[in-house]
Amino acid sequence: MKGITSIAIIGTGNVAFHLGKAFFDKGIVISEVYGRNKALAHELANLCNSYVAPNLNDLRSDLILICTSDDAIESIVSQLPIDSKIAYTSGAVSLEKFKDFKDIGVFYPLQTFSKERAINLFEVPLLIEATNEFLAQELFDLAWLLSRKVTFANSEQRKKYHLAAVFVNNFANHLFYQAKKYLDQEALNWNYLQPLMKETVEKILLSNPEDAQTGPAKRNDLETLKMQAEMLSGKPKEIYELLSESIINTYNQHD
Amino acid sequence: MKGITSIAIIGTGNVAFHLGKAFFDKGIVISEVYGRNKALAHELANLCNSYVAPNLNDLRSDLILICTSDDAIESIVSQLPIDSKIAYTSGAVSLEKFKDFKDIGVFYPLQTFSKERAINLFEVPLLIEATNEFLAQELFDLAWLLSRKVTFANSEQRKKYHLAAVFVNNFANHLFYQAKKYLDQEALNWNYLQPLMKETVEKILLSNPEDAQTGPAKRNDLETLKMQAEMLSGKPKEIYELLSESIINTYNQHD
Repeated sequence: MKGITSIAIIGTGNVAFHLGKAFFDKGIVISEVYGRNKALAHELANLCNSYVAPNLNDLRSDLILICTSDDAIESIVSQLPIDSKIAYTSGAVSLEKFKDFKDIGVFYPLQTFSKERAINLFEVPLLIEATNEFLAQELFDLAWLLSRKVTFANSEQRKKYHLAAVFVNNFANHLFYQAKKYLDQEALNWNYLQPLMKETVEKILLSNPEDAQTGPAKRNDLETLKMQAEMLSGKPKEIYELLSESIINTYNQHD
Repeated sequence: MKGITSIAIIGTGNVAFHLGKAFFDKGIVISEVYGRNKALAHELANLCNSYVAPNLNDLRSDLILICTSDDAIESIVSQLPIDSKIAYTSGAVSLEKFKDFKDIGVFYPLQTFSKERAINLFEVPLLIEATNEFLAQELFDLAWLLSRKVTFANSEQRKKYHLAAVFVNNFANHLFYQAKKYLDQEALNWNYLQPLMKETVEKILLSNPEDAQTGPAKRNDLETLKMQAEMLSGKPKEIYELLSESIINTYNQHD
């Protein structure tokens, strides 16, 4: 079994750049890059010693890797050559949507990517699924080139990881946003929170969030809770009240 | 001006342990330790080459540092010798409560402490306030022994930093808790989220939370938002819906 030695990349977002470059660095041939944004497609192609494909329906490669947003995947798949071997990188899109396709799978990295930041993929969980076992194993072997946290996960499991990721990344980030916005409004120094943000996560990596919880809601300190809620208005106030209530329930009622 | 060269520590929580040990390491004499939990008081005293004081009303030291929970501070202050020089470490307690005291101030570290984790205090913001300028300067000089992020902040400013800290620490930690609880319930591997949690914060330290935001709510991807909300129930569902709504408002209505 030769395995996958060449990949065509579809998409020019952060996932496309990170995976394309990572595969290229591991000796995989990036045969073609396709993207609606031609400037970015050329940039990625240059990075991977590849070239930009003019259209979808004549991509030829051991694997076509779709790194686009969720809502574009179905339409792209329908435009690819019928005998293509395909994978996509989405956390939320069920493989069931493509049950008529013989050779399609999922290659989902459980990480947030920014174009300008290098990520150590070696530690990033890569969740693999495919419509047939042969492709699943090929995708697993391919993933193993990049990471030591490769695992098979069906669509339901993958969706659940994705949902948990929304909590720890998207929602945590939004709390950081609200804190920054508040301090900016009050002409205070957002940078003062940086050591605390770092420690918040580092503490958990060595312990767990249940034991790491502190603060007025954990202590059910009603006086401080009331005072702090009154310092806020609008959505930040709603967020304050709901999360405080949820923490109080967690530690005082064991619901 | 001799400054503060000896400190009595009141309290045996994480702040007491971290500050007591840090001052001791910088050559400050920890003259006494007082705490309701006698075993912990002895542990801290041993750590700082100090001894355990039997009661509050005969503590003698250049400074009495109250490292207890917010609601204990007032009662402790009222029991101290009337001519004491006092500071407390709370973020939320206004100095105004103690306006009848000549020599009282605040020494607030903007950080979360765990007993078992060493913290590099050098980077931790220490917020200083006092009822008189002389004590404020003494506390500033004392703080400067430990950190290069020492700043004066009045009670209002300190309360605002504390509230922002609740968002980035207490609330973020609760999101991590909810994600872990969910994955545990679904028999999935919580450890898979660790690289993502780390990157979530590291990304922001080099950028800012507004630019770092990703996910279905940011993209206003209604299909995924609906599907994910349906995967949840109870408080986690309420949290999902409120935070998603708040993110949508942030990026789509610029409210």
